[in-house]
Amino acid sequence: MIVVMEPGATQQQVEAAVKKVGDLGLRANVIVGTERTVIAVVGEERDQTKEQLEVCEGVATVMPILAPYKMASRELRGESTVIRCGSFVTGGTQIGVIAGPCSVETEDQIISTARAVKAAGATALRGGAFKPRTSPYSFQGLKESGLKMLAAARDETGLAVVTEVVSTDDVELVARYSDILQIGARNMQNYRLLEAVGGVDRPVLLKRGPSATMDEFLLAAEYILNEGNHRVMLCERGIRTFETHTRFTLPLASVPYLHRKTHLPVIVDPSHGTGHTYMVPDMSVAAVAAGADGLIIEVHPDPQNASSDGYQSLDFHGFAETMARCRRVANALDRTLGGPVG
Amino acid sequence: MIVVMEPGATQQQVEAAVKKVGDLGLRANVIVGTERTVIAVVGEERDQTKEQLEVCEGVATVMPILAPYKMASRELRGESTVIRCGSFVTGGTQIGVIAGPCSVETEDQIISTARAVKAAGATALRGGAFKPRTSPYSFQGLKESGLKMLAAARDETGLAVVTEVVSTDDVELVARYSDILQIGARNMQNYRLLEAVGGVDRPVLLKRGPSATMDEFLLAAEYILNEGNHRVMLCERGIRTFETHTRFTLPLASVPYLHRKTHLPVIVDPSHGTGHTYMVPDMSVAAVAAGADGLIIEVHPDPQNASSDGYQSLDFHGFAETMARCRRVANALDRTLGGPVG
Amino acid sequence: MIVVMEPGATQQQVEAAVKKVGDLGLRANVIVGTERTVIAVVGEERDQTKEQLEVCEGVATVMPILAPYKMASRELRGESTVIRCGSFVTGGTQIGVIAGPCSVETEDQIISTARAVKAAGATALRGGAFKPRTSPYSFQGLKESGLKMLAAARDETGLAVVTEVVSTDDVELVARYSDILQIGARNMQNYRLLEAVGGVDRPVLLKRGPSATMDEFLLAAEYILNEGNHRVMLCERGIRTFETHTRFTLPLASVPYLHRKTHLPVIVDPSHGTGHTYMVPDMSVAAVAAGADGLIIEVHPDPQNASSDGYQSLDFHGFAETMARCRRVANALDRTLGGPVG
Amino acid sequence: MIVVMEPGATQQQVEAAVKKVGDLGLRANVIVGTERTVIAVVGEERDQTKEQLEVCEGVATVMPILAPYKMASRELRGESTVIRCGSFVTGGTQIGVIAGPCSVETEDQIISTARAVKAAGATALRGGAFKPRTSPYSFQGLKESGLKMLAAARDETGLAVVTEVVSTDDVELVARYSDILQIGARNMQNYRLLEAVGGVDRPVLLKRGPSATMDEFLLAAEYILNEGNHRVMLCERGIRTFETHTRFTLPLASVPYLHRKTHLPVIVDPSHGTGHTYMVPDMSVAAVAAGADGLIIEVHPDPQNASSDGYQSLDFHGFAETMARCRRVANALDRTLGGPVG
Repeated sequence: MIVVMEPGATQQQVEAAVKKVGDLGLRANVIVGTERTVIAVVGEERDQTKEQLEVCEGVATVMPILAPYKMASRELRGESTVIRCGSFVTGGTQIGVIAGPCSVETEDQIISTARAVKAAGATALRGGAFKPRTSPYSFQGLKESGLKMLAAARDETGLAVVTEVVSTDDVELVARYSDILQIGARNMQNYRLLEAVGGVDRPVLLKRGPSATMDEFLLAAEYILNEGNHRVMLCERGIRTFETHTRFTLPLASVPYLHRKTHLPVIVDPSHGTGHTYMVPDMSVAAVAAGADGLIIEVHPDPQNASSDGYQSLDFHGFAETMARCRRVANALDRTLGGPVG
Repeated sequence: MIVVMEPGATQQQVEAAVKKVGDLGLRANVIVGTERTVIAVVGEERDQTKEQLEVCEGVATVMPILAPYKMASRELRGESTVIRCGSFVTGGTQIGVIAGPCSVETEDQIISTARAVKAAGATALRGGAFKPRTSPYSFQGLKESGLKMLAAARDETGLAVVTEVVSTDDVELVARYSDILQIGARNMQNYRLLEAVGGVDRPVLLKRGPSATMDEFLLAAEYILNEGNHRVMLCERGIRTFETHTRFTLPLASVPYLHRKTHLPVIVDPSHGTGHTYMVPDMSVAAVAAGADGLIIEVHPDPQNASSDGYQSLDFHGFAETMARCRRVANALDRTLGGPVG
Repeated sequence: MIVVMEPGATQQQVEAAVKKVGDLGLRANVIVGTERTVIAVVGEERDQTKEQLEVCEGVATVMPILAPYKMASRELRGESTVIRCGSFVTGGTQIGVIAGPCSVETEDQIISTARAVKAAGATALRGGAFKPRTSPYSFQGLKESGLKMLAAARDETGLAVVTEVVSTDDVELVARYSDILQIGARNMQNYRLLEAVGGVDRPVLLKRGPSATMDEFLLAAEYILNEGNHRVMLCERGIRTFETHTRFTLPLASVPYLHRKTHLPVIVDPSHGTGHTYMVPDMSVAAVAAGADGLIIEVHPDPQNASSDGYQSLDFHGFAETMARCRRVANALDRTLGGPVG
Repeated sequence: MIVVMEPGATQQQVEAAVKKVGDLGLRANVIVGTERTVIAVVGEERDQTKEQLEVCEGVATVMPILAPYKMASRELRGESTVIRCGSFVTGGTQIGVIAGPCSVETEDQIISTARAVKAAGATALRGGAFKPRTSPYSFQGLKESGLKMLAAARDETGLAVVTEVVSTDDVELVARYSDILQIGARNMQNYRLLEAVGGVDRPVLLKRGPSATMDEFLLAAEYILNEGNHRVMLCERGIRTFETHTRFTLPLASVPYLHRKTHLPVIVDPSHGTGHTYMVPDMSVAAVAAGADGLIIEVHPDPQNASSDGYQSLDFHGFAETMARCRRVANALDRTLGGPVG
């Protein structure tokens, strides 16, 4: 950590800051510059020492050097984490493919979708039973009966099931039916919920909040890892920017960034990341090219009559074509996408 | 709602869209333009009809006309809502002042702060007992023992107590000790929690999420109102933008905007909204001038040794001076700020 | 255009708005809704009529239906524009590749770079002679002598030369040496400069401003097209968002969006779009996969000693490897990248 | 400057970085931490040394300590700059008020506006003669004949005239008629134009670009100061964020920030900063309360028939009322707003 003093900081202020560094169990190196004095602080610094030094008199700013997360960091674990869950594999050379509707609507809908996406190469099935909706007047999901339909689709196809959990109260229930627990973007900083899924023996798909920085995203993962659950996948699903021609802005540079900073697999969601069906194929292929370890794509048998998110869902044909293009690109880059086709 | 067809939309596509409008129980007016056809839809439209029309073939875009919220809207209720809770009044000509530390640390700390902020004119006491922290390694709050200290400070000073609740599990506990329940920015879209505080007989201070649009913010309020709790205060606490010289960007134009769109009182948080102690006084005064119905300000007896947020907290003297300036401006604009001084 | 009246708008206000529509030479359709009246306006509306209706009393908002640009629009010209300039071709199935240093430094530097990037498959050479720098104390470019070095490199290798022009005063001079004129991001709304390059017989590479909306970007292109220069390439180079782990956020969804809205070719700049050398290869490949018609990449013989932008430049080896990966992906998607290799 | 090495940086890499520091004429202090080595660099560092160290092998990041601007900095000049130009004074305890239409339309319009705004207390007259418009099809201003009308209004009322210059070609012409030169937000980084106005004996009103950081803003001012023109006013006019209920987001915390970092006066533009007439009064008052040294407000005799920006213009009555409220707040804070009234 580097403590930068104000230009006119007094000798006493410098000494008081140095003393505080010592009180925190750290070692201070004072460097007197031409215009300012800086104090280089040596020792462990991932906790709240930044805040405590920042408020000393005469301190202009404190610049941390270490990343604030530990267990998620690539420095801790050089090898990329590969997560396997039944049919679904993500990480290393394997690109996992999660596909399915925004909301589970009927058993027919979810089973036909499961069959279709599996035939096109998907390795996991998504579908929402508990839906966090912006408006209290929107469809809120089928809840447990939706979970049962998802389980039926898994029994039918062998696809791993991914579904969202929105409350600590429901973690146990959702874990009973689902293979992978999804934490939605709106709950990325619902720390109680993160702790709860950290205590369950299920891989977690953690979606980035639309205004979360990378440090905040990795610290949210750290909440889960810190409870003992090491199977965390990070999902980039777009951020909120001034752009309005897409629902969110999908920053694919997150993929190489996260690969450098963390060993956890990185999944991309081109459906929420664009908000428009017509952009999903190109952005799926681009995500694979950027090095993503997985895709999560909204697919519906009849997007025009979907109960939610139809405007960003592919139909079966569109999904199969998208998969074919993604597979060609994955192969050109020596990676394997999804499962067997047909 | 206005349905805009693609320039080359066929007659059949227009007819199909018109039919869908009818199926949804609404009435369609087709207007043939020089380059495009648009369909004006008449009838109730605050639900999901936008999504369902957006996916029709040949439809370019759907533009809603009505706001998506109802109970929060100024159209529903022309008169401004005034919320009273013991010493604290907000709305109309009254500007409520909530002050206190980020975290409750000790009984001495919270009681001395309560006395000092009351003497300077504050009408409510803030203090965190359950702290949602970005890092799992940061101080997480004193929990129930913190709540007891807050209650002791209320007994001592008569100030209404405001504290955050972060989980549905804790709502009952927090409501037992606190007069006003705060929903933090990170939980603005934790809908289960919104529903839970909507079922409790306590006013709610709802903080805007850092990337929430105004519609999302008002729909979050709608979740609470819809459960029967009509005492909701909206708190602008800054949004995430590209700026880094402030922790968040504090958009005071939210105040006149919200006053036009909703009858609910609007509180401003200049502490989180700037992230720097030295900016808090000017932005507090500016918030009052912009028409805010209340302020929530972090105050600590010794910011240099606060366990959290010291870098954005005022000390007692700074708070008293800030209040004096705010009061002069409030009076110049024919409003009343806080309670009696001294 | 749709004129939405306030909920309580009076009959006179509606009539006044209808009259104003008529005065503007347009036709009004009044639709009386359950809560509001809307007026659908038929006729040409790409000019300032929006502004003029917005200010009528009782008008809540005016929603335009047509895009504000004309000549750039896909509706005007269905076929994609292919731009050819010597060795360089962009559009349709051809992906043009522009590579070279941020700044021209010496004749050796630029000629060796030209040879190396040509050998790896680039079809045009970039290099800055007039540099718009954030600080007045930074290196401002070699000016005309830099242009001469670029021309020498073209003579040597046959690569088309792309360089930036920053002032109307220099357009003629730059056009004398350069095959393609670049308008930098900071000058995207320097309308005098746009008009000046619109009057010159050289293709223009127009970079998106870091906070420009798509409509603003296409209207900037429209300024050039409107002067009679039809050879405009649009360059996505990243936008300013809250993210700090990249210099800008590179939104590749711009590619499918622009392909839908305009016939002009779309180039991607992964160097400025990320600001980090290590991200450039992955984002170059991703841009190709997203459907870009060209790439512009910073390449320097010795990035560690570059006079500018070394932190985001590839060296010769890195560029050759990136090209090889891009070519494999282009081929997998039935497109052709750059020129012959070796 | 602090050079942070990668965790696994080798001894040779550290030595190479230290050597480079020496080659740049600076002094290196190596601090070996528990996980990383950092090098504290002492000496002048406002130039390009950051870039040159960033590209050394094994370097993770380089953190500058000094601000990149010099002449604009508060450290250079502790006392606040007061700018006087005829009737107009800004800085210190004086709040200057610039008011007038977006575009000069007719002599009657501009003279009647000048009289009205002067009567309400304005001390300068704004009005655009050269208009940079997003669309080439929009009204582009009256050019020199507009300048003549502004000069006539000055002769009539004694108000200082402020008008925008959009091209180096026009600087001399505009300076002939105008007392203060305005650089618009879109030209904030048009460095040739900044240099040109830096060479003219006229105060400059420099508007912040909608995505400019504070450092970029102050460096733009530095371009002007560096040419010898010391009379620069900084104008906050709103930034581009995800918000759509305002045209731009107006961050008033810029005022205390700039007051701490620079001695130059800070003007606020609540018209462009909100984009809605109804918000302008509250945000004008808030700007004064935040400590602004001036306001620039769009006023038109008949906003409903303005040729541009009517939707954000006040009429005479609205302006007079806004001034009255601003004056009461300025007085409450011991400052003086504008000139004599009536």
